[in-house]
Amino acid sequence: MSLLFHIEARAGAARAGKLVTPHGAVETPVFMPVGTLASVKGTSNETLEQLDAQIILANTYHLYLRPGTEQVRKLGGLHRFMSWERALLTDSGGFQVFSLNDLRKVSEEGVSFRSHLDGTSLFLSPESATEAQIALGADIIMAFDECTEYPADADRARRSMEMTLRWAKRSKEHFEKNKHLVPWGSTGNWQPATGNSGATQSLFGIVQGGMHAGLRKESAERTVEIGFDGYAIGGLSVGEPRAATREMIEATLPHLPAERPRYVMGVGYPEEIVEYAALGIDMMDCVLPTRAARHGLLFTGEGRLNIKNAKYADDQGPVDPDCSCAVCGRYTRAYLRHLYSTGEILGQMLNTVHNLAHYLDTMRRVRDAIRCGNLQTFVSGFRSRLQLTP
Amino acid sequence: MSLLFHIEARAGAARAGKLVTPHGAVETPVFMPVGTLASVKGTSNETLEQLDAQIILANTYHLYLRPGTEQVRKLGGLHRFMSWERALLTDSGGFQVFSLNDLRKVSEEGVSFRSHLDGTSLFLSPESATEAQIALGADIIMAFDECTEYPADADRARRSMEMTLRWAKRSKEHFEKNKHLVPWGSTGNWQPATGNSGATQSLFGIVQGGMHAGLRKESAERTVEIGFDGYAIGGLSVGEPRAATREMIEATLPHLPAERPRYVMGVGYPEEIVEYAALGIDMMDCVLPTRAARHGLLFTGEGRLNIKNAKYADDQGPVDPDCSCAVCGRYTRAYLRHLYSTGEILGQMLNTVHNLAHYLDTMRRVRDAIRCGNLQTFVSGFRSRLQLTP
Repeated sequence: MSLLFHIEARAGAARAGKLVTPHGAVETPVFMPVGTLASVKGTSNETLEQLDAQIILANTYHLYLRPGTEQVRKLGGLHRFMSWERALLTDSGGFQVFSLNDLRKVSEEGVSFRSHLDGTSLFLSPESATEAQIALGADIIMAFDECTEYPADADRARRSMEMTLRWAKRSKEHFEKNKHLVPWGSTGNWQPATGNSGATQSLFGIVQGGMHAGLRKESAERTVEIGFDGYAIGGLSVGEPRAATREMIEATLPHLPAERPRYVMGVGYPEEIVEYAALGIDMMDCVLPTRAARHGLLFTGEGRLNIKNAKYADDQGPVDPDCSCAVCGRYTRAYLRHLYSTGEILGQMLNTVHNLAHYLDTMRRVRDAIRCGNLQTFVSGFRSRLQLTP
Repeated sequence: MSLLFHIEARAGAARAGKLVTPHGAVETPVFMPVGTLASVKGTSNETLEQLDAQIILANTYHLYLRPGTEQVRKLGGLHRFMSWERALLTDSGGFQVFSLNDLRKVSEEGVSFRSHLDGTSLFLSPESATEAQIALGADIIMAFDECTEYPADADRARRSMEMTLRWAKRSKEHFEKNKHLVPWGSTGNWQPATGNSGATQSLFGIVQGGMHAGLRKESAERTVEIGFDGYAIGGLSVGEPRAATREMIEATLPHLPAERPRYVMGVGYPEEIVEYAALGIDMMDCVLPTRAARHGLLFTGEGRLNIKNAKYADDQGPVDPDCSCAVCGRYTRAYLRHLYSTGEILGQMLNTVHNLAHYLDTMRRVRDAIRCGNLQTFVSGFRSRLQLTP
C-alpha cells in the first residue's frame, strides 16, 4: 500500500489523522487549495508553505492542454516543474470535460472534446487520463469518471454510474501496468518518505450515482469491490440544493471502508467543509477561496464581506479581527478596498492569502476539536457566529 | 534640515552615502521602485522588505484620483494607509498631467486637466500639488513643475523653465507654511528616527530646461538659489536619444550643491542607472523593472530575455544563474514561461521579484564598488557582460 492512512482520533463520525504520501504527511481532515495550471492562482509556493498547506491539487485537463502532460513528464513531473516538494493530487479531467458541455461527446471508449482554448479535437479515456496523471506524477491521482449532470433521472444516473464503474476498472488496470513510469525516479530529486520507501502514486476511485441514494450506495459498494487506495464522492456541487449534497454524502459514507481516506470533490463554503468533516470526510478541495478572493469576496468567522463595498473605504480594521493571517495582521479593510477598486494585483494577492488562511485555519481548528473531543461545541459555535441555524 | 545626507565614500564623481529620512535611512545611490497607487505593482511590502528596498515612490496624480489625497490624510497618511514603515517619496503630479496630452491645459496658475478615468475636470497648482503631497505625507516630496515636451526649441524651453522656477518658489512657500500639517503627528504611529527628531517632510526642487545645456545650467543655479533639501533633474526620458539624456545630466550636475542629494527622475535600464550613479547621481526611479516584468521581459547580468519565447519551454535553468533572488533560487525558465503563457498571476509576481532584485542588487553592487574604490572596474565589467561598447 503506497498511501498510509492513520486515524489518530475520532469524534462521532469525524476522524483526525495523517495521510502519508511519498511527498510528506498531510493532516486530515484537510482542505486542498486548487492549483489549476500548476499554480494556486494569486499566490506563491512560499506563501502556501507559510500557511502550512500540506497538499494542493492540480487539474489534469488544464495541464494536458498547457504545457502538456508529456512536457511536464519531460521536465521531471509536476512537483519538480512547479517546485512544490509537498504532496500533490490531480483530478482525472473527467469533471473538467464534463463542464465543457457542447464541446464534448461521451462514448464507451471515452470523451471526445474540443479545447476551450483553440477548439482542437482531443480525446480522453480511462487509459489516457491515467497515463496523463502518471506523467504529471501527483502523489494521489483519480480514476477517470463521468460526472453525471444535474438533474438526471434514475435511469440516466444508473447508466452513467455503470459506465463510471467500467471506467474505474480500466483506470485501475492501466495504472497497475504503468505506475512504474512515474517521473520521480528518473529525475533523482525524489527521496521516499520515511517508512514509506518504494512508494509510488496512489489511485482513488470515484463514487457517482446522481442524487439517488440507492445508486450512491451501489456505486460505493462496487467501487470498493474494484479496490482503490482511497474513495472520492464525485458528481456533487453541480447545481443541486445543499441539502441534497449532504444527503448524498450521508448515503455514501457507510459503504466506504472506514480505514481508507474519503474525499468529497469540489466543495465548498467554510460551513460546508466543517459540516462534511464532521460527517467523516477526510479530504476536500474547491476553487472557492481563491476565486472569491480575486472577486473581492472575503471569508471571516462572522460571515462574508465584499471588500469592494464603499463602506470599507474608511474602515481601519482588519478583514477579520480573529484571524491570525499576515494580511489581517498588517493591512486595513480601507487599503484592501482601495487595491480592489483600483485593480491592483496586490489586492488579489492579499485577498487570496486571507481566504486560504481562513480555510486552512478552519480545518486546523476542526482537527484540534476532533482530537480534544469538543467537535460538537466547535461546530455549533462556528455556525452560530455565522448566524446559521443550528 | 529635516533630511540628513551623509556622503561616506567617493569614486570619481560618484558618491556612496546615506539619506536619513523620518522613516529610516536609505543607502545611496539608490534605485526606487515605483508604487503608483500605493502598491508596487505585482509585489507585496513583505517582498520589498526582503529585497531590502529602503524607499519606494508613489504617484500623487494617481492617488489624488483614487482614493483621494484627503482620504489618505484621514487614514493617517500614506505610510500608515499602505502599511509601509520605511521611506517614501511622492512625485508632484507634474509629469503625470504632462503625459495626459490632450486632456490638459497649462496656465500660469497651474494645470487644468481631465481625469484619465472618467473625464472629471481637475486642477493642480504648485499650492494644491504641495498640499496633496503634505496630505500623503511622504518623507520626500517634489515641487510642482512643468515637464517640457520633447522636442522644444530654446524659446519654448526657456518659457517653460521660467514658469517651473516660479512654480518652484510657490511650492516652497506653500510647503513652509503648511508642512506642520503632515499626518504623522496626529496618528501617533510615527516615532522620529534617532538623531533626526522634530523632522518633517523634505521638499526637492526640479531642474528643467529641455535639451539645452545652457538652460539646464541656469535652471540648476536658480533652483538652488530658491533652496531645497535636494535636487531632481526632470524632463528626461521623454523621447530624446540616450546620449542627450546623459549630456543634460552632465550639464546640470556641476551646478548642484555636492552636499545635497541629486535625483534623476524616471530612469532607466540597468546600464543607465549604473552610468548615472557613476556620474554622481544619488537617486533614481522607474516603472521599467515592474512594468517589463508584467510583460515577460526579464533583466539579467547578460542582458534581457523575453520569457514568452518558445525556446524557454524546455529550459530548466534559472532566469539568471548569477542572481541570488528567491525566484532564481527556486524556479526554472520553463515554469516561468508556462506561467506567462497561461496568464497566471504568479508569472507576473515572480517576474517582478526577479526584476526588482536585479535592479536593487545592481545598485548594491554599485555602492560596494564605490566604497571599495573599484567602481570603474565594476562598470566596465557590467557593460561588457551586457555586450555594450565600453
